[in-house]
Amino acid sequence: MPLVRITVASGLSKETRRALGDAAHKVLVEVAKAPADDQFQVIEELAPENLIFSPSYLGIPHRAPIVFVQVFMNVGRTVEVKQALYGALADALATTAGFRVEDVIVNLVEVPRENWSFGGGRMSYPPQP
Amino acid sequence: MPLVRITVASGLSKETRRALGDAAHKVLVEVAKAPADDQFQVIEELAPENLIFSPSYLGIPHRAPIVFVQVFMNVGRTVEVKQALYGALADALATTAGFRVEDVIVNLVEVPRENWSFGGGRMSYPPQP
Amino acid sequence: MPLVRITVASGLSKETRRALGDAAHKVLVEVAKAPADDQFQVIEELAPENLIFSPSYLGIPHRAPIVFVQVFMNVGRTVEVKQALYGALADALATTAGFRVEDVIVNLVEVPRENWSFGGGRMSYPPQP
Repeated sequence: MPLVRITVASGLSKETRRALGDAAHKVLVEVAKAPADDQFQVIEELAPENLIFSPSYLGIPHRAPIVFVQVFMNVGRTVEVKQALYGALADALATTAGFRVEDVIVNLVEVPRENWSFGGGRMSYPPQP
Repeated sequence: MPLVRITVASGLSKETRRALGDAAHKVLVEVAKAPADDQFQVIEELAPENLIFSPSYLGIPHRAPIVFVQVFMNVGRTVEVKQALYGALADALATTAGFRVEDVIVNLVEVPRENWSFGGGRMSYPPQP
Repeated sequence: MPLVRITVASGLSKETRRALGDAAHKVLVEVAKAPADDQFQVIEELAPENLIFSPSYLGIPHRAPIVFVQVFMNVGRTVEVKQALYGALADALATTAGFRVEDVIVNLVEVPRENWSFGGGRMSYPPQP
């Protein structure tokens, strides 16, 4: 139930792009208890200048290369899990592809359980009561 | 009020991409009662390896080509309508472009009515009371 | 805390793309009180035919070039602020890149404050009480 969009500047190898996806998924499984076989991701490659970011925000300096990770997922994770997710995603993506942890930007978009169909034309999860 | 993002591997003809958009819109009109002239869509073409998916999830096998459909729309559809939407979208996209129904992945993201401007700098719908 | 996705047909100069981002951000700062140094944006360039739109909706005619602006931001803006945002965004993007105000399409997706990490693996804002 996550659909993960990872936006990077073009130029990463096919292996590194896949490794980014795998690293993000491993974190979602371990930290947010996503099912292990629930890996659905988009790697979006853009011209470097099409990733726009402030040089510093909230005291955290940013520089290229930067990565935006948008996770569409079910509602219900606690604040503690979300915090752990941010830490683990930053570490994992930094390690995998050489980003600085400062330059891993994450946004979560939560939807109700009934808002997914992972194929076959079927609602994947029973709706929230 | 839907904004629909259809993500596919590059290689589909211009005609097929348009047909995908039209097929998805027809379903939204017929099943979810979207206005007929409310077609706003993005067709996102990626390198095939940038659509990442599990070979099987929830008992449904997946293989390339896969298509991700993300529908940003107003809140308020019932579970029954959403279920019907998944079935009809899978059928329509499979028929239109040769996807297997197993490989049509759908995610709904719902927003309040006041969150749209379809041009002219104006809020398109009266806010929810 | 906005993450802004601006989707346009390819063909705009690098300078114009950046100007679009800057113009949208200026509006978010002035109208929606986003922090000035909180500019995080994606400029998505597509083949022109991959931006699909109705020729007219709600009495507003559309023609190419069109621009889709999707703003992922914190919940809490009033209806009045959102209305002002639509007007100012349409004006700013029209002025900056020659779009007609009719062809600036905006969608807001709101998330709770705890759903952001702007780097460093840390939750950027204290969660809502």
